[in-house]
Amino acid sequence: MAEVTLTVCTTCRAGAPTDEEGPRAGQLLYDALNAQDLPEGVTLRPVECLSACTRGCSMVLSGGAERWTYVYGDLKADEHVDDILTGARAYAATDDGLVPWRERPVVFRKQSVARIPPIISKEQDNKK
Amino acid sequence: MAEVTLTVCTTCRAGAPTDEEGPRAGQLLYDALNAQDLPEGVTLRPVECLSACTRGCSMVLSGGAERWTYVYGDLKADEHVDDILTGARAYAATDDGLVPWRERPVVFRKQSVARIPPIISKEQDNKK
Repeated sequence: MAEVTLTVCTTCRAGAPTDEEGPRAGQLLYDALNAQDLPEGVTLRPVECLSACTRGCSMVLSGGAERWTYVYGDLKADEHVDDILTGARAYAATDDGLVPWRERPVVFRKQSVARIPPIISKEQDNKK
Repeated sequence: MAEVTLTVCTTCRAGAPTDEEGPRAGQLLYDALNAQDLPEGVTLRPVECLSACTRGCSMVLSGGAERWTYVYGDLKADEHVDDILTGARAYAATDDGLVPWRERPVVFRKQSVARIPPIISKEQDNKK
């Protein structure tokens, strides 16, 4: 099964002024995730800008051509790290990326920006 | 080079009441695109729900593991079909999905919901 990737936008300012010093909100989210033990089969990848700036901080959860890809937004380093890892673990345990709704952490249920169907679909299964 | 796919959410109501009769806005967008000659190497795919409902109608432009993937929103069947096809043609002509900013149609510049980096990156090139 393809490896799962958490892609975090590290340039996100989350609405902070452009001249603010110190690490950006996106970098803080990346660092907070990077400090944790990631679930098996999950890797973390930084990226400069996911073009979801109105919904920052943002992150992509993806896992190869057979899984749905999810984009999440409005994430916070001091609130959502545990839930992101829980959600990534559940996602990695699926073949198609479709975790049952009730098993998704609230942050994944409420803060979806978009989802993208698999490139390869075993069946035309578009249920949420 | 991998084929390019335009994935259109056909269940989008674009904010219309849930009891409204007739084809949905997303279906109308899909039908309008389907009635055109698509650019070479571009295929059209319907999907039920891209979970970008606050930004409907929405569409994904993707093209294999080596291209950036883009999600666009607030699309209209009677306004944006020509520009979507122009933008898809330019995207299909690239290896990595990165069309120079000035060569993108305005709808792609202004109505991005998110972009997702390639699974396989030839170089760590994250420029917009």
